[in-house]
Amino acid sequence: MTQANQEVTVKIGGVTRTLPSARVGSMGRVPLVEFIGDSEFTKAVASEMLVMIPDGTEVLLTVVTNALPLAHELSHQSGLPYECVRKKRRPYMQDPIIQDAPSMTLGVAETFWLDSPHAARLKGKRVAIVQDVISSGGTAQTLARIVERSGGTVSGYLAAFRQGESALSLPFKYLEKLPARI
Amino acid sequence: MTQANQEVTVKIGGVTRTLPSARVGSMGRVPLVEFIGDSEFTKAVASEMLVMIPDGTEVLLTVVTNALPLAHELSHQSGLPYECVRKKRRPYMQDPIIQDAPSMTLGVAETFWLDSPHAARLKGKRVAIVQDVISSGGTAQTLARIVERSGGTVSGYLAAFRQGESALSLPFKYLEKLPARI
Repeated sequence: MTQANQEVTVKIGGVTRTLPSARVGSMGRVPLVEFIGDSEFTKAVASEMLVMIPDGTEVLLTVVTNALPLAHELSHQSGLPYECVRKKRRPYMQDPIIQDAPSMTLGVAETFWLDSPHAARLKGKRVAIVQDVISSGGTAQTLARIVERSGGTVSGYLAAFRQGESALSLPFKYLEKLPARI
Repeated sequence: MTQANQEVTVKIGGVTRTLPSARVGSMGRVPLVEFIGDSEFTKAVASEMLVMIPDGTEVLLTVVTNALPLAHELSHQSGLPYECVRKKRRPYMQDPIIQDAPSMTLGVAETFWLDSPHAARLKGKRVAIVQDVISSGGTAQTLARIVERSGGTVSGYLAAFRQGESALSLPFKYLEKLPARI
């Protein structure tokens, strides 16, 4: 990661991207990692994350939306199935697991939903939690709670990037560190 | 596509899936196509859809959420970039294009959002619209309107599946037909 003139540039697996950024309140700008719309970068990052999947992992779990193409790629490249938690109730959901998430990096509190047929695929399984960016750890903890409520166990926490300096008690792995503000 | 005992089975590019279904009101059950959580099926469907991309297409455009891994795969396999319309305003959006969508298959009216840096990538470009399932054509028309408002032109409409018998005036292509109700 290099940082200059309010720009953050990352190079992962031979693919280089200068990250866009967004102003958040009066706190400065936040660099944004965009997997949506960038299949080349997504694929390169997934390739580098493969070795981070703990031995014995049987299923990958992520949450919409930006990490979805990343989890798809990681699933394809590792051969492991994946499930994806939603942030909205879908009309077809039957007895979903509903879990409130603590406030997010961008300041929006959310509710996570996992439909019962999908939760059933985590039961008795060792599940690795996959994120695009880990910051406060709140999303990871919410996903871990959903794994537990589904009857699975968490094998590890994987993120493409760590953003900021929060003291995280989770044993997570990541490829690169990003500044919280630029 | 085969249909028996309230089950619909599809075989695309050598991958066979029996589709789950959901009860919708008192109207019977609707078969669901799930690309999320199924990288093998997503990859196979994208491979079969490659030939449907019109000559001269420069960008692919889809909308969250189920079609997102499909568009990612189609982008990777075709070498064309893709953009993805959101159904929720994200805190970092700057002057997004906001377009109301007519009521969806599952009965939920929605608003589509495309952030301005992403809309800029459609300007002056020939854009193919990519969907998981085309039914009433309402989503396709909403995406086409967003292409126009971004300054692009629609090169064609591609869907993995067509569901039901709506008379669609759009010149769309699809791989297989699904029943609206089973």
